[in-house]
Amino acid sequence: MDKAEQDALKKAAGVEAAKLIENGMIAGLGTGSTVRFLVDELGRRVQEEGLEFTGVTTSRRTQEQAEGYGIKIVDIDAVDHIDVTIDGADEVDRNFNGIKGGGAALLWEKIVATNSNRIVWIVDESKVVETIGKFPLPVEVIPFGAGHVIKRFEERGYKPVLRKDAEGKEVRTDENNYVVDLHLDMIEHPEDLAEDLINTVGVVEHGLFLNMVDTVIVGNPNGPRVMTNSNK
Amino acid sequence: MDKAEQDALKKAAGVEAAKLIENGMIAGLGTGSTVRFLVDELGRRVQEEGLEFTGVTTSRRTQEQAEGYGIKIVDIDAVDHIDVTIDGADEVDRNFNGIKGGGAALLWEKIVATNSNRIVWIVDESKVVETIGKFPLPVEVIPFGAGHVIKRFEERGYKPVLRKDAEGKEVRTDENNYVVDLHLDMIEHPEDLAEDLINTVGVVEHGLFLNMVDTVIVGNPNGPRVMTNSNK
Repeated sequence: MDKAEQDALKKAAGVEAAKLIENGMIAGLGTGSTVRFLVDELGRRVQEEGLEFTGVTTSRRTQEQAEGYGIKIVDIDAVDHIDVTIDGADEVDRNFNGIKGGGAALLWEKIVATNSNRIVWIVDESKVVETIGKFPLPVEVIPFGAGHVIKRFEERGYKPVLRKDAEGKEVRTDENNYVVDLHLDMIEHPEDLAEDLINTVGVVEHGLFLNMVDTVIVGNPNGPRVMTNSNK
Repeated sequence: MDKAEQDALKKAAGVEAAKLIENGMIAGLGTGSTVRFLVDELGRRVQEEGLEFTGVTTSRRTQEQAEGYGIKIVDIDAVDHIDVTIDGADEVDRNFNGIKGGGAALLWEKIVATNSNRIVWIVDESKVVETIGKFPLPVEVIPFGAGHVIKRFEERGYKPVLRKDAEGKEVRTDENNYVVDLHLDMIEHPEDLAEDLINTVGVVEHGLFLNMVDTVIVGNPNGPRVMTNSNK
């Protein structure tokens, strides 16, 4: 599949998900290339159909894009709940375990998700996998002592790589932390891994989102396909 | 006990602990009023006795104080281990479970402690307690969504208070996070509480240091008393 075809699927998923937002809702808006299409469609509905809703964003990028369309964005602490959050994912399996954080926004994404009544992910078919882990698992790490955390990950066989930008500089999250990507290939026991990561001093958060999502909308050449999580 | 008497006990503990630092060592230097006396004494030994060692500090405050004495301070990632870390504590019980973070430096303190071969705490007698928890337990929280974390703590009966400075502004840690103090009074099951806190999305780290310390030097009117942890 070439990039244009993949973009078409992402767009289809984004447009489909935009239908979930109704007047008066508080909506969480995620981050990433698929979410861009969602926000474009929501912006269109705001401008052409007079849709009115309040958004909470998981990154400054999404905030800027949404505000550009005149979508009202508030701080997460200005609302007492979020009706539905729509976000992308880097991988998701049939047990609704996923990896997020390719875009380095996993911490805010997880905070928004935790405070949402319903979570919807929009992905293209390539993100739906048998076993998660081929996509490198992002871990947000405090810069102070990060070298020791990476050494510990190496000892555990996690194959950590400190994420850098094109100029070779450490990528910083919105919270000014580092991102360490774990090249695990297959994550057979995601709960155990999550437990180990969160108990590692210096780790702020990790990109495993285990059984958190309610609905996955999958962009597919035959039209969007919906996976519903009945075990949450 | 008045403040002058308490300071005398803190100083006695700090001076005693300074004896643990030998030429060529890599030493972790904590944060707080008792550690100030330790660093004063180490500074004296550097200047008067020609002591040479390398320090890793847990806060910018301690770094500035130490560098003022000409003590060589390096970044934690510039060393591959720390021989001994000497730090204060806000409370410690007979099982060597403690609370730290009164000075808002708990995250760096825990990172330094995790990478230390030996951990020594210096306290005055008032810090040694039957059950920890009378001292409010500090929790470092990401500002984004902190209101929701505090609400969750309230629901769990943790009596959280967002720490503010004298002007009513939120206190920020060296990592630019908030500190939420939990007024629990008695912590009967510290392991369970630690597990719950670290798994709360938005929590970076908490001030429970459970069975991490090797030696506690207690400033006492009869001379420093040493508690040795044989179960670590």
